[in-house]
Amino acid sequence: MKNRNRSMLCDYYELTMGNGYFEKGMADQIVYFDVFYRSVPDEGGYAIFAGLEQIVDYINELHFTEEDIEFLRGKGDFSEGYLDWLRNFKFTGDIYAVPEGTPVFPNEPILTIRAPACEAQLIETYVLLTVNHQSMIATKANRICLAAQGRTVLEFGSRRAHGADAATDGARAAYIGGCAGTACTLSDMVYGVPAGGTMAHSWVQMFDSEYEAFKAYCEIYPNNATLLVDTYNVLKSGVPNAIKAFKEILVPKGITKCGIRLDSGDITYLSKKARKMLDEAGFTECKIVASNSLDEWIIRDLIIQGAEIDVFGVGERLITSKSSPVFDGVYKLVATETPDGTVVPKIKISESSAKITTPHFKKFYRLYERDSGKAIADQLCVFDETIDDTKPLEIFDPIDTWKRKVVTNFIAKEMQVQIFKDGKLVYDLPPLPEIQKFCAEQVGTLWDEVKRFESPHNYYVDLSQKLWDIRHGMLSDITAPKTL
Amino acid sequence: MKNRNRSMLCDYYELTMGNGYFEKGMADQIVYFDVFYRSVPDEGGYAIFAGLEQIVDYINELHFTEEDIEFLRGKGDFSEGYLDWLRNFKFTGDIYAVPEGTPVFPNEPILTIRAPACEAQLIETYVLLTVNHQSMIATKANRICLAAQGRTVLEFGSRRAHGADAATDGARAAYIGGCAGTACTLSDMVYGVPAGGTMAHSWVQMFDSEYEAFKAYCEIYPNNATLLVDTYNVLKSGVPNAIKAFKEILVPKGITKCGIRLDSGDITYLSKKARKMLDEAGFTECKIVASNSLDEWIIRDLIIQGAEIDVFGVGERLITSKSSPVFDGVYKLVATETPDGTVVPKIKISESSAKITTPHFKKFYRLYERDSGKAIADQLCVFDETIDDTKPLEIFDPIDTWKRKVVTNFIAKEMQVQIFKDGKLVYDLPPLPEIQKFCAEQVGTLWDEVKRFESPHNYYVDLSQKLWDIRHGMLSDITAPKTL
Repeated sequence: MKNRNRSMLCDYYELTMGNGYFEKGMADQIVYFDVFYRSVPDEGGYAIFAGLEQIVDYINELHFTEEDIEFLRGKGDFSEGYLDWLRNFKFTGDIYAVPEGTPVFPNEPILTIRAPACEAQLIETYVLLTVNHQSMIATKANRICLAAQGRTVLEFGSRRAHGADAATDGARAAYIGGCAGTACTLSDMVYGVPAGGTMAHSWVQMFDSEYEAFKAYCEIYPNNATLLVDTYNVLKSGVPNAIKAFKEILVPKGITKCGIRLDSGDITYLSKKARKMLDEAGFTECKIVASNSLDEWIIRDLIIQGAEIDVFGVGERLITSKSSPVFDGVYKLVATETPDGTVVPKIKISESSAKITTPHFKKFYRLYERDSGKAIADQLCVFDETIDDTKPLEIFDPIDTWKRKVVTNFIAKEMQVQIFKDGKLVYDLPPLPEIQKFCAEQVGTLWDEVKRFESPHNYYVDLSQKLWDIRHGMLSDITAPKTL
Repeated sequence: MKNRNRSMLCDYYELTMGNGYFEKGMADQIVYFDVFYRSVPDEGGYAIFAGLEQIVDYINELHFTEEDIEFLRGKGDFSEGYLDWLRNFKFTGDIYAVPEGTPVFPNEPILTIRAPACEAQLIETYVLLTVNHQSMIATKANRICLAAQGRTVLEFGSRRAHGADAATDGARAAYIGGCAGTACTLSDMVYGVPAGGTMAHSWVQMFDSEYEAFKAYCEIYPNNATLLVDTYNVLKSGVPNAIKAFKEILVPKGITKCGIRLDSGDITYLSKKARKMLDEAGFTECKIVASNSLDEWIIRDLIIQGAEIDVFGVGERLITSKSSPVFDGVYKLVATETPDGTVVPKIKISESSAKITTPHFKKFYRLYERDSGKAIADQLCVFDETIDDTKPLEIFDPIDTWKRKVVTNFIAKEMQVQIFKDGKLVYDLPPLPEIQKFCAEQVGTLWDEVKRFESPHNYYVDLSQKLWDIRHGMLSDITAPKTL
């Protein structure tokens, strides 16, 4: 159990910096950090935010044990004052976030943390890894479910996940993105993601013949008999043996619901042939499940080619987001606060323009067309601004500032909600099925052009004039440095 | 803490099959499963096996609580008899494995499990995910360390890891593969992987100027001052400010060891310029650390171009094995045992030849040239065979069987050792630094041709004549089926 210590799951520099702030009398300096990401996985048009519930758990449980303190003392890098501070540590800050399941776009603040410097720094690593992991999987699952066009998608990837959490939390994130269930038993027990599954090839090999293996399975699970038909030969042996077992065991019980699973070979060809054989034998309700290195592109092609598949079991390419296994969320200082409560924006410059941050304590709005309900653009504002959607609003591209557009007849929705206030949870975490439903609804507000797999429309994430002016002013100041 | 329940971290079908075996009176049927993988990540020449210690922990702790049983009862798929069996469950089988850190090749048994059917089936998912995750990371780390040609490589990827275990266990696996340390504090505490780290951009932004930030850091950590120099401008601001802080704070203390870190921009250009500036200022011992989306290919190119880098901090592309994020280890039934102890080989056929298994309870040998110590080939044998390395041995390609070679003057080393016997641990787990050392030594026995990043030499994994004959005979039998 010892490696369930999440408080110590931080980059070591969070602690050396924390000790530094403490030693320099800056421990209580209020700071603002934004969590945002820079590029959409798979060069897609949007990502799905997930992982908030696990961040809440983490924040609520954050504490350092005597064993932790002892270990850190042994490293020789920390003052007794700081170790004492850690011993009494409790998170006391504010956290704002968009709700789980929200489609999010690059460079907008998915989460904002306002807290004393030592506290805000400490939580960076765990917050990021949780957002990055679950958002990556939820995004991939959403793409795969879109490709499946309403057919059931199940998450089957535990064995190829990057460790135990990746399996369990990954199944949760996949469910948020649209999967109907998982093979992971623990994710059902802990998160309520419906777990299911029937047999592996080993079951078939354990019996003297494939037919006996199928018959035995139908006897034990007459109401849930999905038979794996590719251990020897799908069309010559697997499907005929499955039909024989269904006839012998299920039909006398009046059961017509059953299934077969294809796990190798050409799924389009085999599924069409199998469908025909099953239909001709009277098993028109028999579902065909396909699994075997599937992803959104293969599923799209299978459907275009007329494959007869009812359920897709998706493993390694979902649970690792194989084609795009890094979600690049970052945690950047955007402001500090003076003792009188004035917010002082901060910026980080970089040789590459994409890595320059947007400073300040911000809020952001999503603008929806009033008639269609479709999302038009997101607008980042300074915290003290509001958007009045009863009046026309001019928005503009933050880089090509001459690209301007006046938006009318729209609804402006503020996207972040407060999660923690002074260290106390002030947000009701919704049940998982509601998050899944919310995600589907919100993805429904995106134009198809944004949801295209290749070269999607670049959704607008703009800055208010006030925010743009502040950022531009800071950039001009810093690139003409006064020091040195 | 509840999701630290590893016993329930299994695919649901392990349980439905287990219940099936139980109900059919097959619970105690002794079976043999092999764990092997099919393709080397990144199309490389070898993989590094890692994760054994975590499998041992898992096996030792395996048990089902009343809460687990209650959850499973609620699913409605399991008999009370089976639930009772789970309640009293303890692993009673034998496990054989190659030691952690061993270079392994496709299709050879990394682990072999001999146990009653219900037990062997139950552990499939966790064993696989552990082998797959840690072997993938150890393999990637080994490639990256080879590219670094003796320079220090540190694992910096926690924030992009696929959840908490991926960060902690990933840092462990990276250390086995050759990394000197990690940024992950918890991995140091739990596994003893040395954790280190200095500052983020936020530290620099928190002060009124970059110089003040550097000065403050040098004051607090004079013996470990690695300053991040790219917050504003590396050459115009970062390096000059670092030099100024070193001179002012470190030099009066007589400290010459220090460092700078480059995290953006063109690392080759910047590192050469920075090296020159540091040397001219007298800081010839100042180390230059580079981080920023590094991997084995970029590191190779940086070194070819003469970049002046002493330490590579490698993040997302190591901790996710970004270019190859799936390690395809599988768990396949290879034999059963009759009550009198006779081993009955089992095979799985597939439409694709690569997915056909090698049946039987096996052992395998690695053959080394006696003079050079270099590895020549691996040979898979039936469990009751031995290789006598005092006599010439004819080996042959299992597919192109006419490709034959007589090996002389060699040493044959049996690769698997027994880990569990009748459910009891009979293996002394080596300390982590010894595993790292063993890995380096064993990789040293591979020819450079096997270690090439692109198009490496295909290392030979052959079958003994006896094993080849058994496999060939079973294939011929099955593809001319007698049933149906």
